[in-house]
Parts: sequence; C-alpha cells; structure tokens
Amino acid sequence: MPTLPANPTVAIVGATGAVGVEMLAILAQRGFPAASVRALASERSAGTRLPFGPEELTVEALGPGSFEGIDLAFFCASGAVAREYAPVAVDAGAVVIDNSSAYRMDPAVPLIVPEVNAHAIGDAGLIANPNCSTIILVTALDAIERAVGIERIVVSTYQAVSGAGAPGLEELERLTAQAAAGAELAPEFFPFPCVHNVFCHETPTDPATGRNVEEQKMIEEARKIWSRPDLKVAPTCVRVPVPRAHAESVNVTLRASATEADLRAALADAAGVRIVDDRTTPRFPMPVDASGGDDVLVGRLRPDDSQPSDGPAFIGWELFCCGDQLRKGAALNAVQIAERMLPG
Amino acid sequence: MPTLPANPTVAIVGATGAVGVEMLAILAQRGFPAASVRALASERSAGTRLPFGPEELTVEALGPGSFEGIDLAFFCASGAVAREYAPVAVDAGAVVIDNSSAYRMDPAVPLIVPEVNAHAIGDAGLIANPNCSTIILVTALDAIERAVGIERIVVSTYQAVSGAGAPGLEELERLTAQAAAGAELAPEFFPFPCVHNVFCHETPTDPATGRNVEEQKMIEEARKIWSRPDLKVAPTCVRVPVPRAHAESVNVTLRASATEADLRAALADAAGVRIVDDRTTPRFPMPVDASGGDDVLVGRLRPDDSQPSDGPAFIGWELFCCGDQLRKGAALNAVQIAERMLPG
Repeated sequence: MPTLPANPTVAIVGATGAVGVEMLAILAQRGFPAASVRALASERSAGTRLPFGPEELTVEALGPGSFEGIDLAFFCASGAVAREYAPVAVDAGAVVIDNSSAYRMDPAVPLIVPEVNAHAIGDAGLIANPNCSTIILVTALDAIERAVGIERIVVSTYQAVSGAGAPGLEELERLTAQAAAGAELAPEFFPFPCVHNVFCHETPTDPATGRNVEEQKMIEEARKIWSRPDLKVAPTCVRVPVPRAHAESVNVTLRASATEADLRAALADAAGVRIVDDRTTPRFPMPVDASGGDDVLVGRLRPDDSQPSDGPAFIGWELFCCGDQLRKGAALNAVQIAERMLPG
Repeated sequence: MPTLPANPTVAIVGATGAVGVEMLAILAQRGFPAASVRALASERSAGTRLPFGPEELTVEALGPGSFEGIDLAFFCASGAVAREYAPVAVDAGAVVIDNSSAYRMDPAVPLIVPEVNAHAIGDAGLIANPNCSTIILVTALDAIERAVGIERIVVSTYQAVSGAGAPGLEELERLTAQAAAGAELAPEFFPFPCVHNVFCHETPTDPATGRNVEEQKMIEEARKIWSRPDLKVAPTCVRVPVPRAHAESVNVTLRASATEADLRAALADAAGVRIVDDRTTPRFPMPVDASGGDDVLVGRLRPDDSQPSDGPAFIGWELFCCGDQLRKGAALNAVQIAERMLPG
C-alpha cells in the first residue's frame, strides 16, 4: 500500500458541491492530519470562502497546475472532471480518491469500502469510491457475506434527493415551500416532483433491459467490491422526498441456512454498522436518525418464510438499512480510504 | 349472488373519514343508482354537511336504528365499529361491504377485488374489502397470475400517509409547513416524522417474527383473494412523504418462464390496470399520476436476470406499480363490489 506522508498535503476537487462540503466537514471532524488543504472548483466558484473547522478556505479555480505539491487529491466532481484531471493529479504525484463513476469499473482501479476490502487498495495511486447506494448495501451486508455467504439480493431503495447533489437538495426545499403554500409543484432540476411523490431513479433507463444506471451500478459494483462476479443482485432504485440518507429494503438469499442468532452475532461485530432493531418501542432505521452520522443503521432483521428453512435456520432473510449517503455513501468513505493509507 | 335492487338505498358508515369522503365522491362520479344515501358517523360529527355531487348530505349519528330501510351499507370505519354495527346492518336486511380488517380473514366472509375474484361474492350478505396495499398488488399482478402463475412475491411498499386516514394527511400538511419554515418537525399522529423521512409501517411489529401487521395482511389477504394458500409473499411496508397513492416495488418468481411479450400481452388486457412504461421519455408509475385515478399503474416491467432464464423467457420479473389507495385501494373497490351486485 503506498503510504501517504504522515501529514499529507490535500486537494479537494469540487469543494463547493454537496459531497465536497461534506468532505471538508469530515476532514475537520476526524482531525485528518493534513499539512494543508486546497479547495478546488470551477472558475465561477473561485474566490468563494468555505468553512474548514475553525478556519476558512478560499476556493481556487481547478487547472492543470492545481496538483503541484499535492500528496492526496479527493475528487468530488463529475465523471468528466475526473477523466480530465485525475490523470493530471496522478502524474503530479498525488494519490487520487475519486468519488465519480469514471473509474469504478476499470479493472486497474480498486473500488473500496474500507470495512469490506481495504486489502484491495494494494499499491494503487488511483482509487475509486463506490456509488452511495452500493456502499450502504455492502456495508450492511458484509458481515453476513463473511459469516454465511450471500447467493442473491433483492433490494428496493428509498434514496434521498441530495444523492443528486446540492441542486437536488435545493429543489426539495423549493418544492417543500411550494407544497406548504398550496402552490402547484414546479420541478426544475429533477424530471418529476420530488415532494409529495416518489419516482424511479432519474438516471437513464436502458431501453433493452429496463434497468436504470443506478441499478446497473449497484449490481456491478457490489460484485467488484466483494470479488463475487457470480453474485446475483436485483435492484430497484427510487427517489423519495428525503433530504439526506438513503434507506434500502433488502431481501437476501444465503448460500446456507442461518439462524437469527447467527446473523445478529455477525452484525453486532460489523464495522461501520449499528443495529437499530427494537420491535417493542418500536424503532428501526430511518433517515432522520442516520443523517449526519457515520454508521449504516441495520434493523428489521427477520426470517423470510417464503424461502426454505430447517427449524430456526432460514436461507432467506430480510432487513432494512439506512445510511447518510453524503457521509458513509461518499465523503466519509473516501476519507476512511485515505486513513488506511497513512503511515501505521 | 344476492342481487341488490336496481336503485338501492345506501348508508355510509364513517362518512366523514378519508375513505368515507372518497366513497361519496365515487358514488357521485360513477352515477351509482342509489335511491338515497345516508351519511353516518360518530355522534360528534352529527349535523356536519358533506358534499354529494351537486347536493349536500347531513351526517347522522350512527346507532342501532341507522340501517332500517337500507339495502346496502358501506362501512368505512374502524374494525371495532364494523364488529359492533355490521351484524346490526345485516340483521336489518342490508348487504354490508366492510372496508375494515375486522372480517377479512373470516372464512365465511368473501374478500373481494372485483377484477380478480368477483365470483367469490356468492350469496354473501357481508363482504370484506381488502387492505389497500393488497388490492393494488393483486390488481397489478392478477393478469400474470392467470397467464403463467406466481410462485413467490418479494414486495417493498412506498405508502402514502392518507392510508392511515385523514389525520395522516393533516399531519403531512402540518409537517410540510414546519419543514418549509425551517422549524423542527413535531409529529403528533405518526410515531415519527412523515416529512423528510421514511419509516417502517406504524402498525405493531410481532416481537417473534419481526413482521408488522400491514405485512401480515398482505400475505394472508393475497392468499385468500387468489385462493392460493401456497403463495409465497415476502413484504416490507414503509411509509413515505406522499399524500395519496401507494407505490410498490415488486419482484415476482413465476411458476414457469415467460417472455416480456407474454407478460405485456397479459397486462395490456388486464382490467383495472394501465401500463405506464416509457423507457425513453422516461415515464413510470408515480403517485402524482395515480392520485385521483381509478387504475393501478404498472410499469418498469423487466426481466430479473438474477433468476434462471431460457433465452428470452425468465422466471423472475420485476415491476413497479402505483394506485390511489383511497380509491382503488378502498372506496372505489367497495363501490365496484356493489356494482357487481346490481341487477343485470
């Protein structure tokens, strides 16, 4: 693993976006030992001041010379920006952790969720951060995959609008005000109203398969992260009127039957997971509880009696999980990758 | 089938509730040939005036004498009210169509979705209207059940707040105003915020199985409606910030493989179903499109390649459906049952 210096110089590309802002907050909260932090964004954001802990950073325009003297560059921008500038940063000697989809399925680029496959970082200088829905899914299920093995996953998502970036969040606020005023909902960013409505994920749908891009990412990325090209995944991705934190309704078929005690023991020890599963109060994972936190909340673990069982051991299980997709689903996961590359 | 008179005298129990109000609207819209309509509710609502087409009805207090001279009584109230007054109405000679859960699983009471099992009405004088989520599911899937047969259903719901009645809708409006004002969300009716959040269905969770009452209803009622005690159903029921119309993400395993052409042909002919499945524009079923309409919208029909296939024929299929749970999921379905009992 290419060890970063103990106090790396850091650049954040796309610092003014939803993930970039979260990245600055997380670096400050976790006391990441950066020698310096350079905030980069498009020309029109240059000069903007951004909070960074008790200090402020002045945004600089991204350009070919932006990565001189940088040890670690977090890319929190579009795939197009990553394709143009990640090679520039690597050539300048920086380790790049890219949050876009540009390199995720490149066989030469590791796709990392640190709790799951930190070993795959190897000596890579360019590392991809998975899609937010995928990170939450594999973090929630990794303990079960390790303990028993997963044959098939059927998952339906309840995805927050900020997964589409700051404009998604602004649209939720604008349409919430319209709804409160009794006005007609007038979407400008999403193709459909994101308030008082749900809609299938706005990424393009493949005319041949009927699957949208978000769903395709969940399948391919989960297989790559777990090194399980045989893994069966059937996802349905849906936007709901939630500002942040994605929820997922998950039905898994295991490779062997397991009891509830088996699975709860595995989940209790899982890194990055917090069990929220109180059937009496009741309390289960919700966006309002996951937002702003680091853990993926997992609950509603219950046997699926529509699949074979042997006494209390079932091969089918259901659970509901929820994670802050701007934190664990994006910025936090990227920072956790970098933390693994700091000297021992 | 006990034929109602051509112009039955009608009573609506719970006329001031969310379903009762919808019932009056639907009777007027469809020109149901009622000789008269009596609006019944609790003592405290007596005297309230309710619109009925161009006219108004004055709400009367429900009591033991409420059903004298009534041919047809729609119950749109709680299970407790149905258990107390449905026998009174039946004794008074009325046909009762009950929207509560009180009699649904009674073996002597038919549970009816007219497009699916009108034949089961038989000569019953008390007929149960299924749970809203179940009606939408079986209406969407009945053509596939008839054409090929369904082995197993995994379904995750996106349920509107008005499924919990008028107070749910009032809470959505109140919390929408709070969110627009930047105030803290203060739920009073639901246990959790129903705005900017999603939560697992608020019905009690069985401490032993982890399943909530809504999920248990979907399993038992689907089996009864289709006369398929062997049917496998794995539901997860979730509330979303939507005023009306439930959406459902459905993964089905068929009893035999079928092609997309097979299933689309079946759905195209299905009563009560409208296909909304434009992958190019794109346009798929959404609450904003289903609200106020009679049809269950069905779309995103696509093969599930995580299950076995034989060329283009798959046993696994996915779809997304959406229906107005106050109309087809409740009041409309009840009126459609009554229409089947009119002469000729």
